[in-house]
Amino acid sequence: MIVSKTQRLTVMLQGLRPALFSLLGWDLVIVVCYKVLHWKWVGSSFVPLGSFGAVLGIIVGFRNSSAYGRWWEARILWGAIVNRSRTFARQVLTTMSPERSATPAEQTEVADAQRELVLHQVAYVHALCHQLRGQDPVPTVVRLIPTEDPAKLAREKNLALKLQTRMSAMLVAARRRGWLDEWQWQALDQSLAGLMDSQGGAERIKNTPMPKQFDFFPRFFVQIYCLMLPIGMVVDLGWYTPLGSTLVGFLFLALEKIGRDLEDPFENRIHDVSTTAIATTIEINLRQLLGETELPPPAQPVDGILW
Amino acid sequence: MIVSKTQRLTVMLQGLRPALFSLLGWDLVIVVCYKVLHWKWVGSSFVPLGSFGAVLGIIVGFRNSSAYGRWWEARILWGAIVNRSRTFARQVLTTMSPERSATPAEQTEVADAQRELVLHQVAYVHALCHQLRGQDPVPTVVRLIPTEDPAKLAREKNLALKLQTRMSAMLVAARRRGWLDEWQWQALDQSLAGLMDSQGGAERIKNTPMPKQFDFFPRFFVQIYCLMLPIGMVVDLGWYTPLGSTLVGFLFLALEKIGRDLEDPFENRIHDVSTTAIATTIEINLRQLLGETELPPPAQPVDGILW
Amino acid sequence: MIVSKTQRLTVMLQGLRPALFSLLGWDLVIVVCYKVLHWKWVGSSFVPLGSFGAVLGIIVGFRNSSAYGRWWEARILWGAIVNRSRTFARQVLTTMSPERSATPAEQTEVADAQRELVLHQVAYVHALCHQLRGQDPVPTVVRLIPTEDPAKLAREKNLALKLQTRMSAMLVAARRRGWLDEWQWQALDQSLAGLMDSQGGAERIKNTPMPKQFDFFPRFFVQIYCLMLPIGMVVDLGWYTPLGSTLVGFLFLALEKIGRDLEDPFENRIHDVSTTAIATTIEINLRQLLGETELPPPAQPVDGILW
Amino acid sequence: MIVSKTQRLTVMLQGLRPALFSLLGWDLVIVVCYKVLHWKWVGSSFVPLGSFGAVLGIIVGFRNSSAYGRWWEARILWGAIVNRSRTFARQVLTTMSPERSATPAEQTEVADAQRELVLHQVAYVHALCHQLRGQDPVPTVVRLIPTEDPAKLAREKNLALKLQTRMSAMLVAARRRGWLDEWQWQALDQSLAGLMDSQGGAERIKNTPMPKQFDFFPRFFVQIYCLMLPIGMVVDLGWYTPLGSTLVGFLFLALEKIGRDLEDPFENRIHDVSTTAIATTIEINLRQLLGETELPPPAQPVDGILW
Amino acid sequence: MIVSKTQRLTVMLQGLRPALFSLLGWDLVIVVCYKVLHWKWVGSSFVPLGSFGAVLGIIVGFRNSSAYGRWWEARILWGAIVNRSRTFARQVLTTMSPERSATPAEQTEVADAQRELVLHQVAYVHALCHQLRGQDPVPTVVRLIPTEDPAKLAREKNLALKLQTRMSAMLVAARRRGWLDEWQWQALDQSLAGLMDSQGGAERIKNTPMPKQFDFFPRFFVQIYCLMLPIGMVVDLGWYTPLGSTLVGFLFLALEKIGRDLEDPFENRIHDVSTTAIATTIEINLRQLLGETELPPPAQPVDGILW
Repeated sequence: MIVSKTQRLTVMLQGLRPALFSLLGWDLVIVVCYKVLHWKWVGSSFVPLGSFGAVLGIIVGFRNSSAYGRWWEARILWGAIVNRSRTFARQVLTTMSPERSATPAEQTEVADAQRELVLHQVAYVHALCHQLRGQDPVPTVVRLIPTEDPAKLAREKNLALKLQTRMSAMLVAARRRGWLDEWQWQALDQSLAGLMDSQGGAERIKNTPMPKQFDFFPRFFVQIYCLMLPIGMVVDLGWYTPLGSTLVGFLFLALEKIGRDLEDPFENRIHDVSTTAIATTIEINLRQLLGETELPPPAQPVDGILW
Repeated sequence: MIVSKTQRLTVMLQGLRPALFSLLGWDLVIVVCYKVLHWKWVGSSFVPLGSFGAVLGIIVGFRNSSAYGRWWEARILWGAIVNRSRTFARQVLTTMSPERSATPAEQTEVADAQRELVLHQVAYVHALCHQLRGQDPVPTVVRLIPTEDPAKLAREKNLALKLQTRMSAMLVAARRRGWLDEWQWQALDQSLAGLMDSQGGAERIKNTPMPKQFDFFPRFFVQIYCLMLPIGMVVDLGWYTPLGSTLVGFLFLALEKIGRDLEDPFENRIHDVSTTAIATTIEINLRQLLGETELPPPAQPVDGILW
Repeated sequence: MIVSKTQRLTVMLQGLRPALFSLLGWDLVIVVCYKVLHWKWVGSSFVPLGSFGAVLGIIVGFRNSSAYGRWWEARILWGAIVNRSRTFARQVLTTMSPERSATPAEQTEVADAQRELVLHQVAYVHALCHQLRGQDPVPTVVRLIPTEDPAKLAREKNLALKLQTRMSAMLVAARRRGWLDEWQWQALDQSLAGLMDSQGGAERIKNTPMPKQFDFFPRFFVQIYCLMLPIGMVVDLGWYTPLGSTLVGFLFLALEKIGRDLEDPFENRIHDVSTTAIATTIEINLRQLLGETELPPPAQPVDGILW
Repeated sequence: MIVSKTQRLTVMLQGLRPALFSLLGWDLVIVVCYKVLHWKWVGSSFVPLGSFGAVLGIIVGFRNSSAYGRWWEARILWGAIVNRSRTFARQVLTTMSPERSATPAEQTEVADAQRELVLHQVAYVHALCHQLRGQDPVPTVVRLIPTEDPAKLAREKNLALKLQTRMSAMLVAARRRGWLDEWQWQALDQSLAGLMDSQGGAERIKNTPMPKQFDFFPRFFVQIYCLMLPIGMVVDLGWYTPLGSTLVGFLFLALEKIGRDLEDPFENRIHDVSTTAIATTIEINLRQLLGETELPPPAQPVDGILW
Repeated sequence: MIVSKTQRLTVMLQGLRPALFSLLGWDLVIVVCYKVLHWKWVGSSFVPLGSFGAVLGIIVGFRNSSAYGRWWEARILWGAIVNRSRTFARQVLTTMSPERSATPAEQTEVADAQRELVLHQVAYVHALCHQLRGQDPVPTVVRLIPTEDPAKLAREKNLALKLQTRMSAMLVAARRRGWLDEWQWQALDQSLAGLMDSQGGAERIKNTPMPKQFDFFPRFFVQIYCLMLPIGMVVDLGWYTPLGSTLVGFLFLALEKIGRDLEDPFENRIHDVSTTAIATTIEINLRQLLGETELPPPAQPVDGILW
């Protein structure tokens, strides 16, 4: 996610430059043909730039609003992961407790189990963040749960799902030992189900691209429109054609690119939802609830990009 | 669902070609009449192409946004089926357990019941996928639950509903034997209710087409607009008319087709939501939770189409 | 709901014909005045058809998207009634059971109570369908529950609500006799509350029309626009005016009608949500769950209309 | 809420007349200056009415869709109040009951408590309706619960909240006496929490107007546009200017007014959501559930307005 | 949030003035060059102001609707905080009670615990309000809970989360002492989870700005459009150019600013959601439920701004 407040134009133009220069070149070709070589047939002021542009605006506008919808839904799903991780940790830490007659040894056991559950939740979040972006989640999980065997983890097709199933088994065990009553178990189980809903939603966005038509036609028609622009303008604007055509073309190219950038929010690109930063925030919050004081630093933007 | 990244234009034009060639032919007829036969009355630069086009853009744009809404809702419903299937399997595998004093024989019985429930869930998902597309769900169900009698299954009007009712009865039986307590039963029952909500939503989209007006008028007016295009352009564009008219007509025809493709997502066409692939993913996830290692391969695109 | 695939234009034009013929007549009057009587003042090429049309398109487009929203919400609410009816029946049939020590007589009693509850649910759905459309629900209810006294039912202002209250009392009684435990009662009670939410939503759409302004102004301005069309076109189009004006006017009249048709989905008109067909589907599903084999036939379209 | 089907134009024009007459006067001034006094400088056919109008349409259209969203959300919230009131009454009447060994005196006590709870719910709905509109809720509450002290009620800042807190205490008391078990108490408590959500939603809409910019700029720019209309039209339309300008201006003024009317649905104006009628419907439904036969008459429209 | 009804234009123009004066200056430069210096090349009536403006309207309109969506979602989240705070307090005050055999001392203890929980909830809301706006929440929290150590509070990275965790522990303690049963504890725990969802939603809006492209391109293209306005108008409008250009430019600048103002609702600016006022309302409601009579005054607008 771009967060830098300076050097804006440079970052914004990333990826637009080749198209802009091609358009400028094409404009110059047309204007030279018309004004220098006097090939009058290359220009026609009747090219229906107006209607074409308006309908193109509607198509691209709709694509963009859908793309923004996907991006914002991705962010909402990760926001829900934040909320539910916190609620899960709060519930584990306040409700899980040994029975009154427990020995000190059992009390330590409960504390260990609480800590393990919360760290598993942190590992779950990091694993989900990595596997959505197609990165290897194993190193981070091993950092948080050092007792894990990396080779075994690597065999899992959906490591986050595996971690959650293990947490579910830990909760059932805790309940059998009397550390949780039925009500508390139910509240924790619902938190896990809610996390699975958010995970599934994020995987849905990842695995279902926008219909290809929404990707193909806007770009195709914007390119055709840019080809027509100098042809339709050169009769009236003459030598000003490159300026006018590039400005209008820039508007459409930028509009088309805004949507394209946002439509896939988990692709390890600069326009991603900043899931690494969110996962780090969750780790800080949950470690602080555990009473730790050596917290990882919050994620910082790198070159104006927050990952 | 189209996923291929190459050969795009060819796939995209599927179904548009006849309309484009008819339009081109009509353009040529008009331009020949006007320029060769000098029938001046076939052209008029006052045909209100502009306003007609803008309002047509609004109509078709609205149809498309509704059609995309149906398609995306269908995908969300199947996403919810993924989440709830996983949560259901996780709950069955971690919470269902014999009482402490159980004999080894009973422990085997519990494990068998767990496996049967999870496989029923896989069969439920495949059955729903097939019956939505109007395919015969029986072979897949028999593959997963070999003890079933195909003839009996074929008599069911809604096989998925039947499978779920049977799972519900299995859960009640498990509870009577003490393998589930009330809380766990409730959590599983809610998962079943949630799956029925998703099934009902998918059936609603399948059984309720877009209002016919939304289907009929956009196509009708786009056709009229294409008929008017060369008439309105030939005076100004002359021999360029076929080019200009076909480009603008292409824009509207493509716009109209995008919506038509998406509005019915369970019709066994290339624009369907890829429910077979989703059902296969669920089968892989659930079999891995069961501890199986011989997993079916993930669904692969065929000729760029993921079914 | 229109489902026929043939004879489209005829059905679609229903209700539009008077307006189209009036418009054509008005066009002819104007063109005769202008071209035959040479009353030049009836035409002016400066009538602002363009801006007026664009803004009108925005108004009508917005009305239509709201109307479609109402129609689709009505369909979603009835879809939820399908889901919840099935879940209710599944829960009644699998969870309600006599205690282990029950006599055969009591077992028969339980089976009767189950059957009665499921039939009440079918009656509830049919009653809701009829009372939303302003039809008399009593005959259908008496068909399903023959022990009812029609005269008494006719006194109820909201028969569906009454039926549900009675089902609620039956559930409480079943619980007192030990046929349901608390958990099962709660699940069933939540299903009833969910059905009441859907009923209330449908009644809300029925009782709250679109704000009258949204109804009045689009029609009013479309009529004014149609009056202006030939005046603004006759100077340029001459004898072609009736053709051009009728086509553009048709576009707006159709656009306006699409919204008007959809905005009230429970009015016993051909554009209604097909609640009778949905209620019949529920009856088939629930009777099949009861193990009946003599099922009512699914609702069939009559003259291309599914009621 | 306007429900009359006749006298439409008169009601619709309420509040628009002053603006329309001002516009007509201004049109006449301009046309007289231009055609009679020959002040040619008052007219210019290059005033950019087209682009200004299109963008203005987008602004006002967006404001209107937000305003309609507020109005419809208000109606949905009141619809939820209907559903939840009915569910609350159904639950009170079917689940609350004395223990089996209860004396006849206690049975009467339970019946009284049921009746009191349902009447409190009716009073709650009426109180909410009045306090949202800034009216005094005390008389209606006293009508329904005659034992109340009006002076004490008048001191409450949020009477509906107070009534609900008292109902909550009554439920806890009923539970202590064994008239409700935990499950039933929970279901009733959730109904109260749901009612509080709806109340809070309605108060949110009441207390948070649309951002003032959305109110100010549309009206401001529509006024400017109306000032420019005759200036831009007089050169081409001459003496027809007042007609053309007033028609186009009427379109924008009406468009602007539609949104303004709907944006605040609890202001005791003719465009309000008809909360009094809804509250009366709830009273009728709940009294009928109580078995009463002397029901208040349903709310009737007064001069075409349903309050 | 702006609530003043007078001095509107002045407040509305805040922040727009520099841009308007720059535009006016530029207009004058162009018109002087064209009309006085006769540099004919500075004007061209073929600048495509129309298409550029329409597409720009679509871009900015979409940005605005997203920005309004963020603002209104922020308001809905705070509305949910109001509802849940009230429900939490209602539940604490009516359900928490000592066992029947409690000593008077214990009864006082319960009352103290109730009061402490409700005040913690008030502190939680104020803390969230302050930390969202980047203000120091410690003084307000210390005002409400005087026993707190300010230095210790200041070390918390997320004070609201900390306060809620402490409330959660207080509820678990209350339950251990028998003041709450499991059902009541569950209802209260769900209220806390709901509050955490609202907090997380507000933090999501705070921490995730609109994609920078939506911020950058609308402003950039509006500026370019304003530069082109007098160039495109001067040929036709002559000395009227500054008037026409400024009016059209004002429309776009205002449109762009409306969205920019709303997109970040927790920035301590005049366009913020009025969270301080909402927090004060919650404090008044909850203190009145506690039976207090010395209530803080409701928040009043300062210079027409409600914070």
